[in-house]
Amino acid sequence: MSGKSVGPQMLLLTMGDVCGIGPEVLAAALAVEQDTRLCVVGDPGVMRRALQRLGLQLPVVTLESPADWQAAAGLPPSCLPVWQPEGLPPDLLSCPLGQIDARAGAAAARCIEAAVGLIQSGDAAGLVTAPIHKEALHAAGVDFPGHTEMLQALAAQGGALKPVRMMLANEELRTVLVTIHCSLRKAIEQINCAIVLETVRIADAALRRFGVARPRIAVAGLNPHAGEGGLFGDEEIQHIAPAIALARAEGIDASGPHAPDTVFMRARHTEARPGAFDVVVAMTHDHGLIPVKYLGVEQGVNVTLGLPFVRTSPDHGTAFDLAGSGRADSSSMRAAIRMARRLLA
Amino acid sequence: MSGKSVGPQMLLLTMGDVCGIGPEVLAAALAVEQDTRLCVVGDPGVMRRALQRLGLQLPVVTLESPADWQAAAGLPPSCLPVWQPEGLPPDLLSCPLGQIDARAGAAAARCIEAAVGLIQSGDAAGLVTAPIHKEALHAAGVDFPGHTEMLQALAAQGGALKPVRMMLANEELRTVLVTIHCSLRKAIEQINCAIVLETVRIADAALRRFGVARPRIAVAGLNPHAGEGGLFGDEEIQHIAPAIALARAEGIDASGPHAPDTVFMRARHTEARPGAFDVVVAMTHDHGLIPVKYLGVEQGVNVTLGLPFVRTSPDHGTAFDLAGSGRADSSSMRAAIRMARRLLA
Repeated sequence: MSGKSVGPQMLLLTMGDVCGIGPEVLAAALAVEQDTRLCVVGDPGVMRRALQRLGLQLPVVTLESPADWQAAAGLPPSCLPVWQPEGLPPDLLSCPLGQIDARAGAAAARCIEAAVGLIQSGDAAGLVTAPIHKEALHAAGVDFPGHTEMLQALAAQGGALKPVRMMLANEELRTVLVTIHCSLRKAIEQINCAIVLETVRIADAALRRFGVARPRIAVAGLNPHAGEGGLFGDEEIQHIAPAIALARAEGIDASGPHAPDTVFMRARHTEARPGAFDVVVAMTHDHGLIPVKYLGVEQGVNVTLGLPFVRTSPDHGTAFDLAGSGRADSSSMRAAIRMARRLLA
Repeated sequence: MSGKSVGPQMLLLTMGDVCGIGPEVLAAALAVEQDTRLCVVGDPGVMRRALQRLGLQLPVVTLESPADWQAAAGLPPSCLPVWQPEGLPPDLLSCPLGQIDARAGAAAARCIEAAVGLIQSGDAAGLVTAPIHKEALHAAGVDFPGHTEMLQALAAQGGALKPVRMMLANEELRTVLVTIHCSLRKAIEQINCAIVLETVRIADAALRRFGVARPRIAVAGLNPHAGEGGLFGDEEIQHIAPAIALARAEGIDASGPHAPDTVFMRARHTEARPGAFDVVVAMTHDHGLIPVKYLGVEQGVNVTLGLPFVRTSPDHGTAFDLAGSGRADSSSMRAAIRMARRLLA
């Protein structure tokens, strides 16, 4: 079996910030997820420590090069394969848990870059990222507000940035965000017909990929009561409604603008009551994330839409207060791995 | 028993917009709530029709004047007492269900004014309001963005407006809003240290009234990640954090600014996991309302804080599409009545 034939199915798991809970939730998830086509991109010593803290006996198997996917494919499910990219800072085990450390930031960034490199060379298919800490990245001289923007830049390979969107999903609700990591003032300034239409198109394409034949897309308003006919702001009239009309003209089943306070409730899918929509397009970071996270971040998965490869992540951060305790919940990481695998199928 | 001795315990229920579900949810709630100190302020014919549509045999008893509280107090629980204020438009039964009608708007406004008048004269203690429709009010020449602002104006009796705040509550979560019915742009402009501090004080006083000895108040940020240390907006640094510091100096247990996307999840109170906070102060209408409504509006109650009297309402609107169908859920109205009674205890 050649590397190229295994590689395209290979899912890479970046270890994230070693001072946070990333290595632990990865170790816990890999002890459960029975999938030989997974490989951590990170530091083998850090992963060994994480396993020890969790009391897990899983052996860490270090892969020497991307060509070793062959070896990885031949490994038994009960091991933790790690590929260590070049350029990781030494002594990562000495980074103090629960604190901002430039070495941890540099290592997190390096793992992401290397993982994207493997995908771009055809040696792997997708990416699940453990949480990073923005201030640690910043201390290492890497300035991105989050994974999404960093992956967008890496995917562009120096060329023009292509539009990406953040989708949050759990069993009940999916939401795709028009704006993300900026002030609310700037988010409002960013909202125009083009960006809303682009988000609706990306959401539609993503849901089709998820197997929804004709996605019912609810577009939330920006303002209270979706602007109340212009009384509470005119972004709905000026930008959002025209974008919905254009999307509908393209055959997309978009509706709205809906009042933000009730659209998520209406889209919520439970066994007792099927949701009225397959996805909600939200204008701001918190309109979209508040309802997805409300039932608990352990259930949510973050999916980056618009990248040339699959990328998911758990719906939580580095949780410095829990790092090293062994108490971090790996449910969201496991859900992220399963979601990525499903998107690669 | 004198009117004055019954009156202070009397809870008035304004019938709301007769073209919406208000009369129906009131009728359904009164058929269940066993409390002789309740009286609808509205049109007896409208209430009779609502009972008929619901197949309820409850007799409507018309009270002739506020002095008739004595009569109301002597009534059996299985009846629906209605007091019809002067100045209601005639022929309200001819207003088409599910449509905006100026007569319905005028009647809704008149009932609210009359009910507040009864409270101000000492003949009643509190108010539960069925939903009104802003456009119907507007068609009647009454321009308020919602009940909250109208009640604030009536309470002022022509004098200076006193600060009021909207609180939404269900079994799991309470949230008090700093800004409500305006565009998101204007809401951001309204946020300053004084308005946040005032909201925290009002929330603290209200929760103590609810029986929480030392309320744990989480103050949410405005921006994603609560501004991420100034990277995503500076309202947290300029206004919100100073307000929290001032509140703490007054002995209030306020914390934050917390990231909006996770603070509601953390405050959520379930049997399995007690909430970390007793109430969340939210900067915008939708930050606060999205999580309270997510589990279903039938569970939520709106409480106006800062008025000189108790006022609650269900957490839903006129639902014109359901009006007359008999299918509207009265749970939220019942919860609003019970909440008002509890606040009067």
